[in-house]
Amino acid sequence: MANIGFIGLGIMGAPMAGHLIAGGNKVFTSAHRKPAPSELVSKGLESKGSPKEVAEAADIVIIMVPDTPQVEEVLFADDGVAKGLSKGKIVIDMSSISPIATKEFAAKINKLGCEYLDAPVSGGQVGAKAASLTIMVGGSDATFNKVKPVFDLMGKNVTLVGGNGDGQTTKVANQIIVALTIEAVAEGLLFASKAGADPVKVRQALMGGLATSRILELHGERMIKRTFNPGFRIELHQKDLNLALQGAKSLGVSLPNTATAQELFNACAANGGKAWDHSGMVRALELMANHQVAPDPS
Amino acid sequence: MANIGFIGLGIMGAPMAGHLIAGGNKVFTSAHRKPAPSELVSKGLESKGSPKEVAEAADIVIIMVPDTPQVEEVLFADDGVAKGLSKGKIVIDMSSISPIATKEFAAKINKLGCEYLDAPVSGGQVGAKAASLTIMVGGSDATFNKVKPVFDLMGKNVTLVGGNGDGQTTKVANQIIVALTIEAVAEGLLFASKAGADPVKVRQALMGGLATSRILELHGERMIKRTFNPGFRIELHQKDLNLALQGAKSLGVSLPNTATAQELFNACAANGGKAWDHSGMVRALELMANHQVAPDPS
Repeated sequence: MANIGFIGLGIMGAPMAGHLIAGGNKVFTSAHRKPAPSELVSKGLESKGSPKEVAEAADIVIIMVPDTPQVEEVLFADDGVAKGLSKGKIVIDMSSISPIATKEFAAKINKLGCEYLDAPVSGGQVGAKAASLTIMVGGSDATFNKVKPVFDLMGKNVTLVGGNGDGQTTKVANQIIVALTIEAVAEGLLFASKAGADPVKVRQALMGGLATSRILELHGERMIKRTFNPGFRIELHQKDLNLALQGAKSLGVSLPNTATAQELFNACAANGGKAWDHSGMVRALELMANHQVAPDPS
Repeated sequence: MANIGFIGLGIMGAPMAGHLIAGGNKVFTSAHRKPAPSELVSKGLESKGSPKEVAEAADIVIIMVPDTPQVEEVLFADDGVAKGLSKGKIVIDMSSISPIATKEFAAKINKLGCEYLDAPVSGGQVGAKAASLTIMVGGSDATFNKVKPVFDLMGKNVTLVGGNGDGQTTKVANQIIVALTIEAVAEGLLFASKAGADPVKVRQALMGGLATSRILELHGERMIKRTFNPGFRIELHQKDLNLALQGAKSLGVSLPNTATAQELFNACAANGGKAWDHSGMVRALELMANHQVAPDPS
């Protein structure tokens, strides 16, 4: 049982905070932007007037907001978390944000005598509701062990990857690999389909071999069945690939296929697809292909 | 027990033909280019003077040569297989070649009153020796069922995907997906490594999630351990991606990441890597990155 602040009660944060309350913790949130969800209030969630007041009331402050600028604001605005922290408190950022900014944020929080963990998740809304999120953590062993029981209320695969920033880096690497594997399956199945083969049978023949992946299994089927309801929305994956590409620029790495995948997501968004499941990336390749299944006679 | 011709006794073909002999079949080959391997001759392999003579002696003629032009020559040269065929015989091309050319070859063979199967394999030299190849077949049900026992002597996963060409199309789709998944893992792990995270722990954290693939498991480990001995040689994968890109041009499909992957293989080959394992593609990305692990201060 701990006093936990939870800032960002959106479609991910609300069920996550619900699990913390159900686990016997006292949970505070900030109503500085909008009122706390009544369903959580009825279970014991307590509202404060600002992130600063939340940090004063809680021993652990969890943040779950959309992107880097929002985390920065929650932490370092005039009435932000940093203003309410005192020595020994723990800040956990579970948002998916820049690994590079994360290292700066952690250093600033550490200077206040407080601990910082970056702990982005994968598994989406389904995983948040089912308390089955994958949680990738960056920070110290000691702090990780201290808050492990809190993570266990929200997730199933909880891994300490390394120091601050490494949790976010792992999440970005995950999103790169997922996007590019979707793109790989899309190119393979589209080629097969345009060459006149049945993509259902092609996918079956490839499953079990070297091309085997969770993406070929799940997203390959979505491409074939044309079911592009999320799942995971293209506009969210665009945000994550933006982190990858901005990070790559800053780190001095070239990620050519991540850049192309982002452009394919952009093409989907330009054609009304920002809320499609990310497997809908195949539609951008289809837009570029002609619709002629048989080969040219030449 | 059948009379089987086998043309192309290289590192793949020789062990495959060996399994056919061990299975009790009479096997013929052509010594028009070089003498038959003495090891197989001692087990009963019989040499003929040309592919034409092989086709006269055998009921089933298997071809296992490097690429499309070689298959065309074996089939349609003056002393080629087509000249020796008679009604009811079966030609099986187990080489990995153009799906489009395959449809033309099959049509020509069919006009002679003979059956044609395209049946490329994956699993490499190891699979050939262990008789555990994956075999992807295009052709008619009836012909497939007739020769299934022959395939079973050489492979484990034998799938009839569709009509002529569809076996080759499936193989190309497999090679596209494998190359691009290698590229995906390479971009993800390189990003993580340059951002200062331990790629060993990142890979562990990702295994089991949506980024899971056979490639992350096998080739991700090779990238981390720097073990780039084949496996599957880059120069062979270059040949397969050439089939993909030539086919895409002819079919009217755009395969942007296949094109980039081919260029990365080209960069490896240009740096002495044509015989590296295909996981060595990561080295091309490393050549493009600086070697600065820490982020720029900006």
